[in-house]
Order: sequence, then C-alpha cells, then structure tokens
Amino acid sequence: MTTGDIKIFAGSSGKSFAENMCSYLGAEVGISETRTFSDGNTFVRIGETVRGKDVYLVQSIGLKPNDEFVEILFWIDAFKRASADSVTVILPYFGYAKGDKKDEPRVSIRARVCAEAIETAGADRVVAMDLHSHQIQGFFKKPVDHLFALPVLCEAIARMQLPDLIVVSPDAGFAKQARKYADYLHAPLAIGDKTRKDHSERAELMELIGHVEGKTAVIIDDFSISGGTLVELSKLLIRRGAKRVLACLSHLVISEAGLRKLEDSPIELIIGTDSVYNPRLSSSSKIKIVSVAPLFGEAISRIHSRDSVSPLFEKVSERVIARALEHNRD
Amino acid sequence: MTTGDIKIFAGSSGKSFAENMCSYLGAEVGISETRTFSDGNTFVRIGETVRGKDVYLVQSIGLKPNDEFVEILFWIDAFKRASADSVTVILPYFGYAKGDKKDEPRVSIRARVCAEAIETAGADRVVAMDLHSHQIQGFFKKPVDHLFALPVLCEAIARMQLPDLIVVSPDAGFAKQARKYADYLHAPLAIGDKTRKDHSERAELMELIGHVEGKTAVIIDDFSISGGTLVELSKLLIRRGAKRVLACLSHLVISEAGLRKLEDSPIELIIGTDSVYNPRLSSSSKIKIVSVAPLFGEAISRIHSRDSVSPLFEKVSERVIARALEHNRD
Amino acid sequence: MTTGDIKIFAGSSGKSFAENMCSYLGAEVGISETRTFSDGNTFVRIGETVRGKDVYLVQSIGLKPNDEFVEILFWIDAFKRASADSVTVILPYFGYAKGDKKDEPRVSIRARVCAEAIETAGADRVVAMDLHSHQIQGFFKKPVDHLFALPVLCEAIARMQLPDLIVVSPDAGFAKQARKYADYLHAPLAIGDKTRKDHSERAELMELIGHVEGKTAVIIDDFSISGGTLVELSKLLIRRGAKRVLACLSHLVISEAGLRKLEDSPIELIIGTDSVYNPRLSSSSKIKIVSVAPLFGEAISRIHSRDSVSPLFEKVSERVIARALEHNRD
Amino acid sequence: MTTGDIKIFAGSSGKSFAENMCSYLGAEVGISETRTFSDGNTFVRIGETVRGKDVYLVQSIGLKPNDEFVEILFWIDAFKRASADSVTVILPYFGYAKGDKKDEPRVSIRARVCAEAIETAGADRVVAMDLHSHQIQGFFKKPVDHLFALPVLCEAIARMQLPDLIVVSPDAGFAKQARKYADYLHAPLAIGDKTRKDHSERAELMELIGHVEGKTAVIIDDFSISGGTLVELSKLLIRRGAKRVLACLSHLVISEAGLRKLEDSPIELIIGTDSVYNPRLSSSSKIKIVSVAPLFGEAISRIHSRDSVSPLFEKVSERVIARALEHNRD
Amino acid sequence: MTTGDIKIFAGSSGKSFAENMCSYLGAEVGISETRTFSDGNTFVRIGETVRGKDVYLVQSIGLKPNDEFVEILFWIDAFKRASADSVTVILPYFGYAKGDKKDEPRVSIRARVCAEAIETAGADRVVAMDLHSHQIQGFFKKPVDHLFALPVLCEAIARMQLPDLIVVSPDAGFAKQARKYADYLHAPLAIGDKTRKDHSERAELMELIGHVEGKTAVIIDDFSISGGTLVELSKLLIRRGAKRVLACLSHLVISEAGLRKLEDSPIELIIGTDSVYNPRLSSSSKIKIVSVAPLFGEAISRIHSRDSVSPLFEKVSERVIARALEHNRD
Amino acid sequence: MTTGDIKIFAGSSGKSFAENMCSYLGAEVGISETRTFSDGNTFVRIGETVRGKDVYLVQSIGLKPNDEFVEILFWIDAFKRASADSVTVILPYFGYAKGDKKDEPRVSIRARVCAEAIETAGADRVVAMDLHSHQIQGFFKKPVDHLFALPVLCEAIARMQLPDLIVVSPDAGFAKQARKYADYLHAPLAIGDKTRKDHSERAELMELIGHVEGKTAVIIDDFSISGGTLVELSKLLIRRGAKRVLACLSHLVISEAGLRKLEDSPIELIIGTDSVYNPRLSSSSKIKIVSVAPLFGEAISRIHSRDSVSPLFEKVSERVIARALEHNRD
Repeated sequence: MTTGDIKIFAGSSGKSFAENMCSYLGAEVGISETRTFSDGNTFVRIGETVRGKDVYLVQSIGLKPNDEFVEILFWIDAFKRASADSVTVILPYFGYAKGDKKDEPRVSIRARVCAEAIETAGADRVVAMDLHSHQIQGFFKKPVDHLFALPVLCEAIARMQLPDLIVVSPDAGFAKQARKYADYLHAPLAIGDKTRKDHSERAELMELIGHVEGKTAVIIDDFSISGGTLVELSKLLIRRGAKRVLACLSHLVISEAGLRKLEDSPIELIIGTDSVYNPRLSSSSKIKIVSVAPLFGEAISRIHSRDSVSPLFEKVSERVIARALEHNRD
Repeated sequence: MTTGDIKIFAGSSGKSFAENMCSYLGAEVGISETRTFSDGNTFVRIGETVRGKDVYLVQSIGLKPNDEFVEILFWIDAFKRASADSVTVILPYFGYAKGDKKDEPRVSIRARVCAEAIETAGADRVVAMDLHSHQIQGFFKKPVDHLFALPVLCEAIARMQLPDLIVVSPDAGFAKQARKYADYLHAPLAIGDKTRKDHSERAELMELIGHVEGKTAVIIDDFSISGGTLVELSKLLIRRGAKRVLACLSHLVISEAGLRKLEDSPIELIIGTDSVYNPRLSSSSKIKIVSVAPLFGEAISRIHSRDSVSPLFEKVSERVIARALEHNRD
Repeated sequence: MTTGDIKIFAGSSGKSFAENMCSYLGAEVGISETRTFSDGNTFVRIGETVRGKDVYLVQSIGLKPNDEFVEILFWIDAFKRASADSVTVILPYFGYAKGDKKDEPRVSIRARVCAEAIETAGADRVVAMDLHSHQIQGFFKKPVDHLFALPVLCEAIARMQLPDLIVVSPDAGFAKQARKYADYLHAPLAIGDKTRKDHSERAELMELIGHVEGKTAVIIDDFSISGGTLVELSKLLIRRGAKRVLACLSHLVISEAGLRKLEDSPIELIIGTDSVYNPRLSSSSKIKIVSVAPLFGEAISRIHSRDSVSPLFEKVSERVIARALEHNRD
Repeated sequence: MTTGDIKIFAGSSGKSFAENMCSYLGAEVGISETRTFSDGNTFVRIGETVRGKDVYLVQSIGLKPNDEFVEILFWIDAFKRASADSVTVILPYFGYAKGDKKDEPRVSIRARVCAEAIETAGADRVVAMDLHSHQIQGFFKKPVDHLFALPVLCEAIARMQLPDLIVVSPDAGFAKQARKYADYLHAPLAIGDKTRKDHSERAELMELIGHVEGKTAVIIDDFSISGGTLVELSKLLIRRGAKRVLACLSHLVISEAGLRKLEDSPIELIIGTDSVYNPRLSSSSKIKIVSVAPLFGEAISRIHSRDSVSPLFEKVSERVIARALEHNRD
Repeated sequence: MTTGDIKIFAGSSGKSFAENMCSYLGAEVGISETRTFSDGNTFVRIGETVRGKDVYLVQSIGLKPNDEFVEILFWIDAFKRASADSVTVILPYFGYAKGDKKDEPRVSIRARVCAEAIETAGADRVVAMDLHSHQIQGFFKKPVDHLFALPVLCEAIARMQLPDLIVVSPDAGFAKQARKYADYLHAPLAIGDKTRKDHSERAELMELIGHVEGKTAVIIDDFSISGGTLVELSKLLIRRGAKRVLACLSHLVISEAGLRKLEDSPIELIIGTDSVYNPRLSSSSKIKIVSVAPLFGEAISRIHSRDSVSPLFEKVSERVIARALEHNRD
Repeated sequence: MTTGDIKIFAGSSGKSFAENMCSYLGAEVGISETRTFSDGNTFVRIGETVRGKDVYLVQSIGLKPNDEFVEILFWIDAFKRASADSVTVILPYFGYAKGDKKDEPRVSIRARVCAEAIETAGADRVVAMDLHSHQIQGFFKKPVDHLFALPVLCEAIARMQLPDLIVVSPDAGFAKQARKYADYLHAPLAIGDKTRKDHSERAELMELIGHVEGKTAVIIDDFSISGGTLVELSKLLIRRGAKRVLACLSHLVISEAGLRKLEDSPIELIIGTDSVYNPRLSSSSKIKIVSVAPLFGEAISRIHSRDSVSPLFEKVSERVIARALEHNRD
C-alpha cells in the first residue's frame, strides 16, 4: 500500500491519535496550527499546500466539545478554500451523538445540528466509531464509515481468559449492542432494568433481568461520564452473586469525579479505547486502554485505495489487534 | 376551538382515517381525487382552492408503501403549486421507518431517503406516531410532532383488568420502549433474547430474560408482519409458565399469512391501532382495534390553534380515550 | 475501448436491458439484490464494492412506476453511502415524464417531483430517451444525456422499403417530433387534429389535416397505453384512402386491453423499442421490437471514456443499428 | 376588495404596465428608484418601508433582457433584505423562456438558469403569461401563476366579427396552442409545415397543411421578432386563396426591421398585448394593442385575497375585457 | 406599542442584556434553561410553548465564543423543532466577525462559516451591531438588521463637553468608520499608520497621520482585546502634543491583562457598550459603559410591529439615549 | 508544465485577455460562440467537446456588466450540462464587487447576488483580482483564488525610478490597501479625507491628512469611473506642494467623460491593467497599461497542476513581470 499521498491533519485534540494512525500507516501528520486568542476565538491555519489533495482531518468532539466542534468547522472551510479535493472528518468520538433524539418537548436534536453544520462547512465524508445510535449515520447526507470497537475490545477481553463470562447491558436501551458483544464472546446476557428519570447524569438503577451468580460479569456500554450507573450496577451484580465485575467502554469520557467513584467501586478493571483524549485517566490503575488508531488507520488506508471498508465491521486483522493491544504497555 | 379553516385532505389510503379525525374535530375532509392510470401512473388533483391555507394531508405509508409514498410527494407538490401556505403530512404509519440505519454494508437508509424526498417536495411539518426509532425525527429538518399510541393502548389494556400482568419485549432492541408500557401499567418487564440473523422476516428467538410463571404476559411491539416472532415468543412464554398471552402492536401491518399464524397461536388477543389501512384484519376475531384518529385530531387541533402538542405525549384526555375505544364496536 | 472498470448495475425491472447493454459493451452486470418484503417494502443491497467507482444504474420507470421509482431512490442512496464516486441513472423510459406541466389547476408537475427526488437522493447524471418533452432536461439540474430512438426506428422502417410513405402525427402536440421522422424518411407529414378533453386516456380524434390517399401511413408517437388514439386514427386514415397503416412508438407501455384493441385494428405492424419491460407484448405478432440497448451501451461507453455523446443524436453507427435490428429475431 | 395593503413596485421597464395594473386595482405604485451608473452597473433602491409586506414586482424580461433580468435579481434581494414577507415577480413577458431546452449539443437551458437565479435571489412566487412552453412552470420550484392572453385576444378578434375565420399555426410546434384559439373562435385550423434549420431568426416555411381558400386567416403565435415567418406565411396564405390575413401575437417584441417588413406584407393587422414595453410600435398603424394589465391586476387581487386564480385561465370578467380593449384608444 | 406577544429568550451569556431589553420594552424574558454537562456538552431546553410564535434569542458570541456559538445553533434548532414561526438571533457582539476574510493563504473565513451554520440551523433573521466590516451582512442570506452604537456612544462623548476634540483612528483600516464619528462630533480626524505584521495581537504602531497638538484625542475602535494598540497610540498622541486621550470602543472584550495595561496608560477613560458580558470590567474605574439594550429593544419593537428599522441607523430617540446613559449609574 | 489539457474558453468580452493568457501558457483558446439576437437575448454555444474536462472561462464583468454577467451564467450552465468536470470562472474584473454592503437602507448587496447566482449556475471556482473588498471572497462558498495586481503595478512604478515617492490613498476607506503599495515601494502614505455624500459618482474631497511637499505623489485606487476624485485630489496635491502626480488603478473602467477630465488634469500618467476591455483608452497618451494576463496564466497553470497559488500573492516571477510590462509596447 502506498500512503505517500494520504494527507492526514490533526486538530488540536487529535494530535496523538493522528500520530498513532500515521505510525500504523507509515505516513506523516500534515503541518498545521490551531491558536486560541485571548478573547477565546479559535484560529486555524494549514501549513502546507493541499490543493487537489484528499485530506483526512482527525479530531474527536470530546472533553471540550464546543471548542473541538467549532474548530472542525473552521478546518473544513480552510481545507475547502485551500482547494482540497475532498475533506474526510475522522471523528473517533462524536460527543454530541448522545443528543440524537427529541426525547422531551422543546429540545434540540444536537447530533443532527452538528452533522448538518459539518456538512454545510463542506465535509465530504465522516469516519466515526460506536456512535451512540446507528441511526446517526442517517443524520448525515454524506457517506459515513461507521467503525466498531467491538473486535478490538472483545479480543482484549478474550485474551484475559476470564472464566464464566456474562455480558451485562446497563439498561434496556443498550441491550441490542450488548447482545453483539455476548455473541462475540460466546457468553450469555443480563440486562439492567433502570429508568433514567431526567437529564441529571445520575440514573436510577432498579433491577436486573437475568442470572449472574458465580459469573464474571462484564458490563458493556458506549461511554460513562459520572460512572454512576456502572458503580450502582456493579454493586447490584455483586449482591446478586457475581464473582467479579469488569467494565468495557468504547469512549472513555469519564470525569474526574467519575474516576474517583470507579476507583472505589467493586469494578476491577475498565477496558476502553483511546477515542477521546482524556489525560486524567493516566492516574488510575483500573483503566486499561487499547488503541483504535490502527483500526482507523486501516480504514483510511482502505478508503484511500478505494477498497471496501466493510470487512473491518466484523473482524480485523491480527496486525490491527496486535497494534491495538500493545498500546497500553507504555 | 374553531376548526372551520382547518383543511384536511386524505390520500388514497387515508380516507377512513381522515374521516375519523374530522369526525373528532367536527370538520370536513377536503375534496380531492387520486387516480391510477392503466400504465400504473399515479395522478392527484385537488378539488377546491387551497391558496393561503394550512393544509393537512393524511396518508400512511402502509401496505402499498411505494404507491402511497409517491402519492404523498405528488400531493405536496400539488398543494404547494396551488399556493397553500403550509403542508403538514399526517403519517399515522411510516412503513419505511424500519429502514433507519445502515446495519449491513452497501444498503440504503431508506427512512432518510423518504424523509428527504418529502421535504424536498415541500412539506412543512410531519405528524407521525410510534416511529420505529426516535432518531427518525432527526432525519427530518422540518418539525416532526411525534405522537405515541402508548396511552391509548395502555388504557385499552388497563380497562381489561387483567391480573398479574407482565410486559414482554420481543427482543433487546425494543426493551427500552417496552419499559415505558410496563411503567404505565405498573407491571414488570421480561425480554426475549433473540438474534435476527439476516433480512428474512423469520427471526431466531433464543431465550427469555426474566420470569413469567403464572403471569398474564402482554407482548409489546411496534409492528409485526409475518407474526413469526410473536408466535414463537408466545409459545416460549407458555412453556415458561405464563398463564395467558396477549399482544399489543402500534401498527397492524400483519400479512395474510401472518394473520393465519396468529390465529393458530397461543395469543388470545392482539390489540392495535388503525394507523394502517389493513382490510384483511376484519376477518379475525383475535384482533381488537382502537383508534388513534382522535389522538391525531387532537394534535392537529393544537397545532392549528398554536397550542402545545407535548401534553399529548404522556397522557391524553378522557374524550380521546373514549373515542379511541369505541372505535372497535362497529 | 476499455470497459473493464464500467460498473453497470440493474434495478429489478432493468435486468434484461442491462444485460443487452453489457453484451454490447463486453462488460458484466454488477451483483445486486432487490427484495420486496411481505409488507410491500422495497429493499436493495449492492453485492460488491463500489467505493470510488463510476456507477451506472439501469432501470426504467415503466409498468410499476412507483415501485421502480422508489427503488431508484434507494439504489442511488445505497451507491452514494457505499462511496461510489458518481451515480448515473439510465432511464430508458421515464414514465412520469408525461406529467411535465400544470395543464389544469391544482395538479402536480410529477416529472419535476421525480427529477428533484432523484437529484436529492444523489444522482450525478441521467441518461434518458425520447422524453415526453425536451423541456424535461431542464427539470434536472444535473446533466441529462437525452438519446433519441429516431435513427434506430427510422432505419427499421427504411429497411422495410415501404412505398409512398407518409408520416402521421396523432395530434398537433406531437407534430414537431413527427416532422423529424418525416425528414429522416424523406416523407410528407399529416396531422391528426384532435382535442383531449380530460384525463381519461380515450382521446377525441376529430379530423385529419393533410392528404393520405394511396399512401402507406406510419403513425409516429412516443407512447401509447390504451391504443385508443392509434386505432381511431388508423380507421380514419383508411377512410381517407390510405392503403396501409403502420405505427411506430418509442416506448411500448401498451396495456393488455390496448394490445387486444390494436390486434383488431387496421394497423399492420407496430414498431417499437425495448425501453420498457413489457412481457405481455410477446403474445402479439403485430409487435416488432428493435433494441435501444446498443444505443445506450454506446452512449455509456462514450460517457465513460469522456467522448462526446452528441454524435449519437443524429445518426448512429452501423454496429448499433445491426445489433438493434437483430434483437427481434429471437 | 381591499387593495390598500397591496404593495406593487415597478422595475425600470415595468412602469407603465404597473400603473395600468394599479389603475385597475385602485392602488398606488410603490416608490422606488433604478439607476444605471456610467460604468453600466445597475443600482436599485426601495423608497418606502416594506417590512412585513407582500411585495409584487412588475418587470418584463423584454427588449433589454439582461439589464431587466439582473435588475429583477437585485430587486428581489433588496426586498428580502428589507424584510418583505414575500416577493412575487410579475413577468408579463419572460424573454428567456424561448431557451427552454437543449435542442442542440453544448448549449444552455437559459430559462432554467434564469428561473433558478430568480429563486435563489429569494422570489416566493412568479406570475407570468403565455410562457413559450407550459413546462417552464416546472423550471420553478416556487408556485407560478400562469396566465393566458387567449380570452383577451380572442375577444378582441371576435368583436371584429370577421367572416370565415381560420386559425393558422405557423408551424407544427405551436399547433397545440393554436388549436385552443381555434376552439375559442369556433374556427378550423391550418398548420404551416416548416423546418427551422438553425439559430438564425429566418425560418424556412415549406408548406401548408390544411385548406384556406376564401377564408380570413388569423395567424397565431406567441411572439415574433423579425417578422420573417409571419410575412412568408401570409404570402403563402394569399397564394393558397385566403382572402385576408391577420396576425395575433401574445408578446410584441418585434424589432425595427421586423416592423418595416410587416408594414410591407399582406398582413392587415397585428393584434397583440402590452406585455413588453416596445416604444417603436407606436409608429405603425397595423398594430393593435390590447392590455393584459387588467388581467394581471385581477390575478394579483385574487392572489392577495387568497382567492383561486384558475377561473382566469379559461375566461375573464367583462370588466377585464372592457379595460383590456379600451387600452388602444389613446 | 403592544409587546405582549414578543417572545424574547436569553442564551446563557445574554441574560442581563435580555433583561435590560425587556425592561425597555415592558416585556418578560421567556423561560428557558441552558446546562453544561460534566463532559462539557451543552444542552438547552425551552420552558414554555413557542408554537407559532416569533422568537427573539439574545446571545452574544463573546468571551466564550465557541460555547456561545454552539449554544445558539442548539437554540435555533430547539425553537424550530418546537414549531416557532420565526427565530431572530440577537447578536449584540459577533466575535467571529473579525474572521471576515482570507488575508493569508489556507485559513478559514470564520465569519462566513458561523453565518452559514446559523442559517443552516434555521435562523430567519439576525440583529447585530457594529460588525467588524459592513460586508458581513452579505455573508448572510437572511436579512440582517445592522445597528450602530455610534449615536449612543457619540452622545455619551458629546455630553462630556470636551474641548478641542479630535477623533483618532488606530489604523488605516478603521479610518472610514472613524470618519463617521468625527462627522457626528464635528471634529477632525487623525489616523494611526501602522502595520499588523502577523496574527499576534500586538500590532506595530508606526506613525500618526494628522495633527493633534493641544487636542483632546478620542481614539475610536470597534474592539480591543489586549489593549496594545490603544496604549501605544495613546503614548504617541501624548508625545505628539495631545492634552488628553480617551478611547471609545463598541465592544468591550478587553482581556484581564489588557485591562491592567489600560489602567497604567495615559488613557483617561474608555467608553464602551454592554454588548459583551465581561464581568472583569467592574473592577476598573476607567471604564464607562453605556447600554445598547434600549437600542436593540427599540429595534425589536420596530421589527415586531413591522416598522422601519432604518431610522435607528442615524439617530435614536431621546428615550433610548436616556436609558443608555443611565446604565452606568448603578 | 503540460498545458495541453487546459481548456480555456473566452466569453464575448474576454477574448483578447484569454489569448494573452494562452500565449503565456502556450495553450489554445477553446472554440465557442456568443450571439446576441435582435431581441437582445444572449445565446452561447460551446464548439468542442468538454466532457470530463476542467474548463476555465475568461470574462470580466466590465463595461456592459449585465450582458457579461448573464453570459457567464449561461456559459457555466452550458459547460455543466455538456458534462465538464469543473468550471472555473476567471473574472479579471468583477464590476459588481462595488456593491458589497448595505450602506443605506433597502438596497441590494449586489456582489452577493452575483456570487450566489454564479454558484447556483454551477461554478466550481472563481479566480479574481483586486476585489473591491477582501470580504467578497466570503460571499462565495466555492474557493476563490484572489490575485493582486500590486506586484505587477508596483514593479511598473519602481522601474520608472521616480524620486521622492509618496503613496496617496484617495480616502480613508482605501487607506489599508494603499498602505501595502507604500510598503512595497518603501514610500510614506498620505490620505485624502473626504466624505461620499450619496450615490452620485462625484465625491466631496475635503482635506489631505499627511505631507506631500516636494514629493512625487502616486494616487492608488482600485478603479475610477468618472475620474472625479482623482482629478480633485491631484489638484489638491499640487496645491499642497507635490511636484508631480501620477495615478495607479487596478481596473481601468474609466468612462469617456472621465478620460477627458483626466486628460485635462495635473495627473501625468495613469498606470493600470488590462483587466477590463475598454477600447476608448487607446485614444489617450496618459494611460499606460500593464497586462495581468501572465499573472492569471501563471495562476491557472498552478491551479491546473495542483500547485500552491499563494506564492503569487506577494511576488511574481520575473517572467510574469517581463510579459506584463511588454504589453504596452504595441
């Protein structure tokens, strides 16, 4: 594969992810600059010609979502006005994906607002991972390559050779996704039966549907901020007889307070990806990070050479897995 | 409330629903004509002036979805070119809502395609009910008033005073919705744990999460075509000790074959709405239909008088319930 | 010419036409699948990667126009979301082209509605033939390559070496087109002077402008459904002294009843093209079909190799004619 | 009818037409100014507030089509940025309607270009008359009220009580329209059978289909610039035995040279409308102008009071006719 | 004036400005809620029905520009999906207006990006003040009412009755605007002749064009962040013989460091408006704030009652001035 | 550099400019035809295939701005419908750029109207020079390559080796641009301090800011039509002691009357470019024209070979300068 003409640029929060991707691809991150002026304005400048190039911009909408999102809009405009042939936005984490429906009166569908602004700014394609719901692809008119952390995360779990695994969905809404993890791991499924009463991040965990006695429970979720649900569920699982509890999250947007709460919980280990730049995680010994940068690198390589990306949906090459798992060593 | 200037028109498959709505509102259905020429072409003609009017067009995308969808596009264009001020599409059932995601490679997101075509044709607003997923609102740029059959259906169930109710979701994907029915009915929840292997309508029911012994199980789903899942689940429920099994469906798009299968199943009764015009249902004694035409009528009345529609989301007036339940008597 | 990288796909009603095109081009029809579920929903799936490809989709909007039109929208979306570089819709027959004006109050301009939906879904180009009016090109913003069956049809007539030819337009509205056939065949022109009173397909033929005594009359029209006008006109022509009457139609959307009527009429032979898949035609000995698949194949070959398509407008190569005329032998 | 709040403005070439409309309506033309700077730039300024108003702008695209068209775009933008609620463009003549198809390779569909620019600038509605083809309505997405000069022109002819009338279409392309005049006047139809070889305005008249001996021939066309076709056809008609020849044109865009040619021709009288401001016509005694300003005034009155405009399509009130015919007296 | 049906809502940074506007108008600020979740996501919720209402949303893009801008997008979407008839965005300060051109290669035109995102989200109108350049109105397709602080600021200066005034523009780029202040104050103009070398906020002041000996110099600018230019220029003015130096800024986005620098400079007083919420200003005795909330209130009142807004461009009523000047007393 | 596949076409007013560009590039101007019919309609036809080509269309919006602008729209549509891959509009002068703001109530932002119409017609890129304001780039969504005549014009001045140069801006509004010329020429800056009272082209020159005694003053402006400001300023400069006065204009749109006025003025020489086709200039000995066709040729060559255009912004190659300066010899 020739990657010489892949032009990968990193937004301010995507620098290390882009470097990991480029390391997988044997490519260089493009020269660019993001500045924040003292009135808070964001300014971006591309440092090399992109005329006629296919540009890939790497930036999650993560812990400073508004700054990161607005920066993406400015990047797209800058690339387009600099006559790039196409701009692909690499969104390892799309934080506003949570706002994917009008679940109470008179609120905004924030994921659609962001999708539309990104397309209006001129994006030609989006590559994302584990969007909060599959329907979000339909918020975009442009093609979305939707990657899944599942094979990478499940391989990380599988190689731990935990006995008597059971996969646990924290609530009914995530049960369908959790089913897929259970299938991959050849494990049964249990479901937390809770109701989220309002917009506070503290959810009410009520009951557990299914049997977990004597099992190693792995709670699967796409993200956790405050850790509240995870901790409550882990305690319930222990009360119901589970021997050990682990958690597996696609996006590690855990807050400072959430991290402390998880440290004090029965959860042994939280396995997640590097989709969000979250420096506070390094302080915790309970967090194990596998990298999805090789997965994104592989996807971009296929996009760029006009190969099919869909083989990546179900399983990924041993090279991607190896690179993903070695991530946590340093 | 003055409804004199509400202009409600019916597409070819929405005539009786529109009449029921108008009966609730004390209004008249507008004059219009749909023709199918012998080459299959659809032709629509409005029979009275709509210049400067707010028009409401009633038509489900139901059992002849392509004919009904295309007819909607032509109606919208005809109303707009006839200088209607606004066109609201009343979609009691939006059959292509099922195609709301790209769950395998190289398929279309059909719900987005339909939403975009409806908006391109010129629709100003959509009123729909129990869309296959809440995210579909976000496929539309224009406002969507999303109604729920839940209060009407739950009242129908509640007034049957069935003992030891348990609500059953046929699969993990629908569990979140089923949770809401269980809440309304103060009943616990069980979940079918199946995997749908491919696009065939026969799904693989694997297991049941939860306990149903001695219970009156009410399976909740948004629709069923072949009846396959319902029948398999009903048998499993009986095997697991349920005393009685009922089903409750928002949209009765059941096929002829599906109806026969349901007739022969342990399911005692299927409660559903009149959102789809499905003439084959009248032959079955197991089907009980409640009408959501009063619910839509109430919503239109509020839209037209610029009142808030959101109070209808959680509960509806006794008048709406009464009209809904009397529907089945004739 | 290299056609190895032409990706031609067929919609459900375009399969045999696409095969004929591919046979002319020495190419293979792409792998794809169209399904109709038991609730009437259409589902499409592309069976091979199209990332970065220029895709040509073949499907007429013919005898099941709504199913075929909606399927086209889904195909376009599927190709675009699967990252095809461009999608060209090959519409040998565009049935809704008839709805090209607002010729009475409060109707839709259906051809514009369809054109806009096709463009909104993402089509990059359309190739059509003998559109009901030339202005329909202007309903599209994207380029339309508008082919003409005239050289193929006129060659078929010319090679019959009929004596004393006169070309007859069925009405004033088609006279301008008929003039072009008369020019090609070096024949004079007569015009039926009728008024079409309403939307029924039975038109009122009133008179004939011009002289046909002793002539072999060839009635030219773009399509006929019920055959009504053709039969009435043929009788009038005989009454006015024509020795023989033939008809020549671009699009054979003749209905079952129309076919019977034509069988019983003075019309000896109806020459038409294979632009519409119409299986009922094979039962009639009066129908002679020439194939425009080579014409479309030639056009696609030129589009693909960035050659000019316009030479095809006035005359076509002997190879195209030979392939077109041999079509009817089997 | 209350016309106090109708805001009618005139572009530089629509001033007298707007005054005639306003005289019919009892309204005042709005204050505005058009300037042409010495570098040729057009500048427009509205002279009174239009915030929240429904504005009607009167301007034909006539003898200085590019200046008039660009001025329309600037007016629309000025009205919209001045917060008018809606802008309706009154186009008594739309000169670029002639460019309605791609009848040779590599030309523009100019009518669509103009329609799209007008809509992009912000027009909400267009009112036009006798567009070169009916399909042009479909070039606009916004509603077009398409008026016909036919009742006004036919009444002018009918009141001349000419004996043995025959309506003559100058060519096959206009035959369908001419048929309608013949129907209104209860007269037969003859058709000039010519071929227009290229873009020169001189067409080749070849033959006449139909019989005109002893008749008073009225040639009907939508416009004539050089008068070439009219003069040639009038000579042919005389040769074929017609006693008298008149012409009836919707749009009098006749050039200076054309006018001289018509003066010297067998044509006795040319009846037309005031849709184009053409000052050179006043020098000719052969030109009789009826006004369509009352027709447009009536249409605007109905649009403004949300009445149906369609009754105007087939016949108009005696008041409109009387005002139309008295126009030429001064 | 009836203001009962004006629905004014405030974004998180527009609360006190909206209250001042409402106090001028005798209206109430609408109920709404903005939340920032612990992952940084912004969430907005409207607290009362807005169906069919004309909504005015007040929020500057000020000191947290990305948060404030994204919040505006979400508000617009929420209002539109809640079926507001129209949404007017009140932007007393539009911080990204500075990014109005591509003054070096490969940067973004950030003001256009923001304008387009605001329109895509659904805004119907924008009301702004002292945009960095007049051309920014043209970045919006929707109407922009562009207000000027000039009469309010000049009145504040005029009432100080300073002798021998001279207006000073800090650079050539702002000279045209400063000219207008000089005209209002009947004062001459001097111009700083500097070159801004790069994107750092520290500009290089080189020289002064004009004479300031013995004068009271009032430096006019639209905004200052670091205060650098103002301070350098004030020192130069003193060196060149100016007796006193004041400054007058439309938008007080002064940073903490800038404020300290200004405190230590020869500038006696900085007169500005409350267009930006900048709490750090209250600590400085050199800052005098006049309120433009009455000016915006007056504009909205005129917009709402469909009056002309343009009279506000040149002068404002005594009531607006009085309210503006009394602002600083508390 | 290979220019064989650059397809450069010229509109009716861009023919000689296009030839000069092609001469620089060693390319041929494409075959095309513009006609003006006797009713004033513009008609364009491309004379060779452009399918799949990158097309560059050369036409200024100059002395017949509406004809030239409308012709551009038709060209773009013709190229797009003829399946060109991309259309780049080369606008050496964009006359409506002057209408870049709403500087009085109820006028149009004409530059935005034109920009949007050009994009709607289908343009993919614009190359322009010395736009009236930099912000106009932001009126376009598509990339604009904005060239500057500055290096070419300044070299022409520098090579005249005039002693004691001072650059003079005619007013405050142009001061920022004039600063850049002064920087290039290492000269000081003076500024005319005038107010333009209304839309008349005669401006009121009031005073001069800065010192010009004994200097050779070079007035810099982007264009002059009536010459009024230039002449008044030149007289003032002489009165204030300037020894010699020259002028330097990017766009020579000088009117006939303006030219006479300049002939009679103290201005010795006017140096400008060939961006506008202005045949009346050849009669004047005071006009010196340098060509920017090599500059545009160089830009197109870089665009076409996907090189960076930005190096041209600050300085240009000796070859471009040499070609630019030799222009005036013949």
